[in-house]
Amino acid sequence: MSRRRKRRAAQRDRRLESPLLRLPFRRLRNPFPPFECLDQEQVEQLHQASMRILEEIGLDFFDEEALDIWQKAGAKVDHTNQHVWLDRGLILEAVSKAPQTFTWHARNPEHDVEIGRNNIAFAPHSGMVYVTDLENGRRRATYADFKRFLKLAQMSNVLHFAGSEVVAPSDVPPNVRHLKRVLAAFTLTDKAVRDVAHGRIIPADNIKMAQIVFGNDLTQKPVIGGVINVNSPLRYDKRMLGGMITYARAGQISIVTPFILAGAMSPITIISALAQQNAEALAGVALTQLVNPGSPVIYGGFTTNTDMKSGSPAFGTPEGARALLIGAQLARRYGLPYRGSGSLNTSKAPDAQAAYESMWTVWPAVLAHTNFIHHAVGWLESGLTASLEKFIIDAENLAMFHHFLQEINITEEALALDMIAEIGPGGHHFGTPHTQARFQNEFYQPFVSDRLNYETWQAAGGFDAAQRATLVWRELLEAYQPPELDPAVREGLMEFAGRRELELEGENLYDE
Amino acid sequence: MSRRRKRRAAQRDRRLESPLLRLPFRRLRNPFPPFECLDQEQVEQLHQASMRILEEIGLDFFDEEALDIWQKAGAKVDHTNQHVWLDRGLILEAVSKAPQTFTWHARNPEHDVEIGRNNIAFAPHSGMVYVTDLENGRRRATYADFKRFLKLAQMSNVLHFAGSEVVAPSDVPPNVRHLKRVLAAFTLTDKAVRDVAHGRIIPADNIKMAQIVFGNDLTQKPVIGGVINVNSPLRYDKRMLGGMITYARAGQISIVTPFILAGAMSPITIISALAQQNAEALAGVALTQLVNPGSPVIYGGFTTNTDMKSGSPAFGTPEGARALLIGAQLARRYGLPYRGSGSLNTSKAPDAQAAYESMWTVWPAVLAHTNFIHHAVGWLESGLTASLEKFIIDAENLAMFHHFLQEINITEEALALDMIAEIGPGGHHFGTPHTQARFQNEFYQPFVSDRLNYETWQAAGGFDAAQRATLVWRELLEAYQPPELDPAVREGLMEFAGRRELELEGENLYDE
Repeated sequence: MSRRRKRRAAQRDRRLESPLLRLPFRRLRNPFPPFECLDQEQVEQLHQASMRILEEIGLDFFDEEALDIWQKAGAKVDHTNQHVWLDRGLILEAVSKAPQTFTWHARNPEHDVEIGRNNIAFAPHSGMVYVTDLENGRRRATYADFKRFLKLAQMSNVLHFAGSEVVAPSDVPPNVRHLKRVLAAFTLTDKAVRDVAHGRIIPADNIKMAQIVFGNDLTQKPVIGGVINVNSPLRYDKRMLGGMITYARAGQISIVTPFILAGAMSPITIISALAQQNAEALAGVALTQLVNPGSPVIYGGFTTNTDMKSGSPAFGTPEGARALLIGAQLARRYGLPYRGSGSLNTSKAPDAQAAYESMWTVWPAVLAHTNFIHHAVGWLESGLTASLEKFIIDAENLAMFHHFLQEINITEEALALDMIAEIGPGGHHFGTPHTQARFQNEFYQPFVSDRLNYETWQAAGGFDAAQRATLVWRELLEAYQPPELDPAVREGLMEFAGRRELELEGENLYDE
Repeated sequence: MSRRRKRRAAQRDRRLESPLLRLPFRRLRNPFPPFECLDQEQVEQLHQASMRILEEIGLDFFDEEALDIWQKAGAKVDHTNQHVWLDRGLILEAVSKAPQTFTWHARNPEHDVEIGRNNIAFAPHSGMVYVTDLENGRRRATYADFKRFLKLAQMSNVLHFAGSEVVAPSDVPPNVRHLKRVLAAFTLTDKAVRDVAHGRIIPADNIKMAQIVFGNDLTQKPVIGGVINVNSPLRYDKRMLGGMITYARAGQISIVTPFILAGAMSPITIISALAQQNAEALAGVALTQLVNPGSPVIYGGFTTNTDMKSGSPAFGTPEGARALLIGAQLARRYGLPYRGSGSLNTSKAPDAQAAYESMWTVWPAVLAHTNFIHHAVGWLESGLTASLEKFIIDAENLAMFHHFLQEINITEEALALDMIAEIGPGGHHFGTPHTQARFQNEFYQPFVSDRLNYETWQAAGGFDAAQRATLVWRELLEAYQPPELDPAVREGLMEFAGRRELELEGENLYDE
């Protein structure tokens, strides 16, 4: 580090106020057994139902290359209707080739993330059209907003990912957005990067940019990937298949996620939705393994219920919680890493509803051993809007989970029976050496929650949680410093992105 | 029902708007396995530590009758210092006599509640000094507020208890409050009633009032009880011991709950706090069984951490969540019903913090198979204030748990593979007979959460969750009708309460 950088870093450290800024980056495991709603027999019932869906009903694959792969593997294929029927033998054989666990490499190796088993990784929101904050209100997101959220993700050590399309920047043409996104992700952050999986061109560009950062041979080094949403019920479209095949072939990551609102894209019962989700997800996972056996893939669940009054999606619901938990059991049934979500809600404001619906998502996600917890911060309004305040409120809860998931060790020192004896009945433990040695780090220190008494709180302005969160995101953005980056790599990224922007001008990226 | 009552009931039914008013009363079980943080060996380590505390360090019991009971049972007693040392043999033998499960009878037998095993009962807040709502702000609670909360508890079918000292009415002299409370609980509600356990006079009065309602022989019929807070560390005071002994002797319920803020009333490590909690709770449970073997008793946990910056209690924390979960494992170790809490938080407003801290309490409580979930609604400001809006927001989450905890049955009908086949890829399930037959009841219907789109929400006033909760509690109070009550019972209660009010005027209820 140069002297100037060092001085700036020292100045920065002195001004850090929020405990969020003092949290170290830490890989996370859930040391407790996964919480399971179904017994083994019920898991098998769902498995059998999914197998029957795959074999007897089948799925559409709207992509000729995908259909050819299925045919070559021995599936029954109807090319005219772009439909396939998939035998359980074929599916389970292919699925068994997927790795149980893999490392998602970050530009900074200290930020590498393990995906699978009882590892948990938190990733920010993505796909939002609007951005909102208490001062400026709700408006179309821009590239400036996009960069703002990336900086917040970099500064929030509770998050393991830099984020992908944290917001869709309305001031950037759609067909060059991926270049701007990935360039920003690799320069403004040094965390693991995910982007989208739309068609064949975007993932290919993304992989090329990743090669500039990580070197040319990425076949055994997962560094980038995207979510493959199934067009439920039972249909993979060309765009998603192109993305999946492109990433899988390059040894990169597919997060195969059926998007099911029970009652709309599946029968209304959550059990039926899960049988369908399982069939859809396994078909996608199997395809990645036919393309490239052993390539990293994640079984995703995004099943929740429809609000039957309005026909719109309902998030943070009891049904969504059950679907999340049972989805994890199914993924474990096949030894696959699992993706769920973290802060889903339908609220329009960072209020009590936003908070409790989010907790109805992140609690089951953590309990289920969800390996990749997407949308773990920032969601508002069914995913239409990214909220700066909600980002911080959610980050507080992720920080609490980091604390909650620490392993429990029962040692003589922790038990401290000598202290209990010494203080005896009716005394207090504030001043003991045991307390004094630990009081700074033993407990979780909040950065949004306010524990002042009423009078002091009121005298300090009487701010609610959202208003306090404003102060924190401002502080994070002020404290932001770009992580170090080899100037040649930066140059390479800029050059590639600049050239491709020109090449893609006016181009249609999806040959649909 | 008289014709007039019937007509009024019919009118009432027509005007019911909130889904909360349409929910039926339902006993609740957690059909899923309890979530456990500790393995069996760790539970044994805590058990052993607690036994050493009981045997080697001992506890104060500031009550001569209690000391005599211990001495008679063979404990080593120091009468001068009012201190006892308790052998594990004595403790475990006594604890083993406590029932694993019992019925807490309500005035309306349809509202009887099972306590123990995987049964869950939700009870309202208690002990609040202030009341707050969005319109009138925070003020000292009165008897009118007290009655208002009882009515809300009666009308909220998600709650299993009528509440006890939901708020402390500042306009009623302290030494007659129990008479007003129990009179109101038995007349304004027909749910299970709990009151306080302060001294010998109050519980005796409460039992007499219960006898007017349930008949004279209550020795085998638990109908009333109270929380016994241990004056941690390691001290039972005369007031609580008087209450415990009085209830136990009459076959009524003690909820033995050490009140530990780790770092203040115990060593700072949660593990140490739990070893101490366990010793304290077991000592109390054992005493109830020495007084009256087989009398109903609940093992309570209220352990959380101190905020080490301010010295004040911290609620809704990761530490509190761990303590709640591990406390349940300890209670199960001894086959005892378990009491935890539901909506603890330190927020001063019904905002995002209030919501997420509460979820950090109620999620672990439900996962742990907590049998008696106290303070399940209404808490604000570390228990100083009862919030009308928070009551409703919490009730929404309890209703969600009622839905979440329904047993999962995987049937052919639920799987609906025929519907998946019929709709096929790319279709939608809104109009199928399977959906049409179920759409009204399949999913949880919120009464606080708003799922409208942004524009419609804004046009409707742009209310946040707390503002919408105001409409719900108003509606509940408007719809309130007192449950039917035998006029002779009402008369008997009024007469008793009136006479005792006069007798207790100026009396000191605690002979300390």
